[in-house]
Amino acid sequence: MHSPDHPHVDHVARYAADIRERLRARSPRVHCITNAVAQNFTANMLLAAGAMPSMTIAPEEIATFVAGADALLANLGTFDSERRRAADIAIAAAVKGEIPWVLDPVLIDRAPSRAEYARSLLVRGPKTLRLNQAEFTVLAGDETGVPATIADFARDNEVVIALSGEIDIVADATRTAKIGNGHALMARVTAMGCAASALTAACLAVESDPWRASAAALTIFGIAGQIAGESANGPGSFATAIIDALHGLDGETIVQRAKVA
Amino acid sequence: MHSPDHPHVDHVARYAADIRERLRARSPRVHCITNAVAQNFTANMLLAAGAMPSMTIAPEEIATFVAGADALLANLGTFDSERRRAADIAIAAAVKGEIPWVLDPVLIDRAPSRAEYARSLLVRGPKTLRLNQAEFTVLAGDETGVPATIADFARDNEVVIALSGEIDIVADATRTAKIGNGHALMARVTAMGCAASALTAACLAVESDPWRASAAALTIFGIAGQIAGESANGPGSFATAIIDALHGLDGETIVQRAKVA
Amino acid sequence: MHSPDHPHVDHVARYAADIRERLRARSPRVHCITNAVAQNFTANMLLAAGAMPSMTIAPEEIATFVAGADALLANLGTFDSERRRAADIAIAAAVKGEIPWVLDPVLIDRAPSRAEYARSLLVRGPKTLRLNQAEFTVLAGDETGVPATIADFARDNEVVIALSGEIDIVADATRTAKIGNGHALMARVTAMGCAASALTAACLAVESDPWRASAAALTIFGIAGQIAGESANGPGSFATAIIDALHGLDGETIVQRAKVA
Repeated sequence: MHSPDHPHVDHVARYAADIRERLRARSPRVHCITNAVAQNFTANMLLAAGAMPSMTIAPEEIATFVAGADALLANLGTFDSERRRAADIAIAAAVKGEIPWVLDPVLIDRAPSRAEYARSLLVRGPKTLRLNQAEFTVLAGDETGVPATIADFARDNEVVIALSGEIDIVADATRTAKIGNGHALMARVTAMGCAASALTAACLAVESDPWRASAAALTIFGIAGQIAGESANGPGSFATAIIDALHGLDGETIVQRAKVA
Repeated sequence: MHSPDHPHVDHVARYAADIRERLRARSPRVHCITNAVAQNFTANMLLAAGAMPSMTIAPEEIATFVAGADALLANLGTFDSERRRAADIAIAAAVKGEIPWVLDPVLIDRAPSRAEYARSLLVRGPKTLRLNQAEFTVLAGDETGVPATIADFARDNEVVIALSGEIDIVADATRTAKIGNGHALMARVTAMGCAASALTAACLAVESDPWRASAAALTIFGIAGQIAGESANGPGSFATAIIDALHGLDGETIVQRAKVA
Repeated sequence: MHSPDHPHVDHVARYAADIRERLRARSPRVHCITNAVAQNFTANMLLAAGAMPSMTIAPEEIATFVAGADALLANLGTFDSERRRAADIAIAAAVKGEIPWVLDPVLIDRAPSRAEYARSLLVRGPKTLRLNQAEFTVLAGDETGVPATIADFARDNEVVIALSGEIDIVADATRTAKIGNGHALMARVTAMGCAASALTAACLAVESDPWRASAAALTIFGIAGQIAGESANGPGSFATAIIDALHGLDGETIVQRAKVA
């Protein structure tokens, strides 16, 4: 669907279509530090997109894996001490190798120690911060708890914000995309946010503009969810169907279905 | 199906129907210490029921998560040292906050050290002990190995016993429900018992009588399994279909399908 | 399909058919040290085959679990320090109890420390080494990097090589089977190789000739994949369908569909 009155919409949809094809063509390696709840689903979503996941968190070898990867995801879910050590080493390797990485501060609204740790990672230069509104409010709140605006926070931290919700918002200091794809069942399947973050990392591996990569990731993810929702009988079959949908998704379908404002 | 000759049957079915609706309405938070094999399936079953799962086992933050939860599951599967520390802290937080918790002593019939540990947790006051016959025999055996009766064990330990099997038995000192729902494929999918324990925890969060909550949980779980079995082609599609079935299950269907004696 | 000109083909197919039925009849216990990404899928594949999985890696209890098992899988994926300790203890228990075990050196082509560790395990006597070509090249390479032939490597290390690929190759010093079953989507689902290794361990539990057991495992696995591919819409539904297919697979279908040369 071309929208001559909203060229912005068409642009994101076209980037997304192009980036989706690049994933299939280049098969980027994405190393994921993620929680055990999410590992299997995340790996299968990355494979469905065309990427190659790896997931080790052993301190002895994670630097080697990250150095050989094209992007890194650091997800704070079920964050035990070994994962924390692994994240430190992995992020150092990513920074050294100029490998783009995504920070996903899962559930920092539930535990203060986790929020503090997320802040300490944010200054180490992730390209994208993928999170939901409750998590953003914690991270972006000032001393009185009032959060910064998304664009201000993005500018101050030199990071793209990819905020998942009924409408996804992807913003850097100057650009904002609002993505209206997705499906209600996405909130009823565990690890959906984690998988969206992993797909964002994959897109960063094949697109150097992190805002474009992040907007493309959430557009692709939302469209796969919409397609899955058309055949699912509930959250179980939805989780299976979104993997199939992402695997089969082509650029043309993305351009047709993208709802970006 | 109303059974005027067996008012007991109708009662459990009606509790179950009512508790199922409460899960959807109140969306209780359930913190789960469970094994990596079971985490994803358990989280998705809780989400399908209407509950909100969390799964961290990091010692620094688990107390905060439990304090903010409405129920706790402590499952002994793949029980490494970090999970053991986490369980100690989590149960202390549950006891302090008067948060109901479920003990699932997975495979204690296979390892003596695990059985000993399960006994040390049992005295800390779980509302419900969810297990199978082999596990019960180990835990309830006297020095000569002869197990106590279920009702005696429930009375002596002030705990509801939720015993899974072809017929599920839920008993406290004075009441016993025998639940005949379920499907043969449940024994061919990993983590089914773990998910039943997690659902029991969710029901304890919205029903203060632990016997009613536990009988409701196994009735709901069994009916979801029966419905799943009607469309499944094997254990793979069954695991997907039971999530769908639990998500779609309403009170009326529960009353119609419950086989409780 | 009987091939009078290729009696070898018929032999492997018939062993596979027979071993498949033995799995169902004997329900062997298979203890798996495997990565968190693979645990759930591996457990469900073993259950679908008729085996009983266990997965603990706690140092205090793993020896007990292995001693009570009929086969062991040691898989190096996401190989943290606790898993490494667990593997040491588990392999010692397997050797002591003469329990057959499978080594799956996942991704040793990506991390030198992992390759070194795999070599140290290989000398401890696994019955079968299940891996892909990239992993074999690392393990079998001499100082100049030129790999030994499969049969030479099998003879020198007294191990059966089960090499997964478009054509699977199962070889010991004197016998080689080339298995042409399988489906392209197997490369797009995580933990497929891990599950194949677990099934190999299960087959070793019911067949004392490790070459026959390993060739049977990959034949059974490949046929289940082929059947799954006939109904799957993508890798998500494929992962579900292969569990169903393995569960329903009987000896007659194996003999009909086996493509072994």
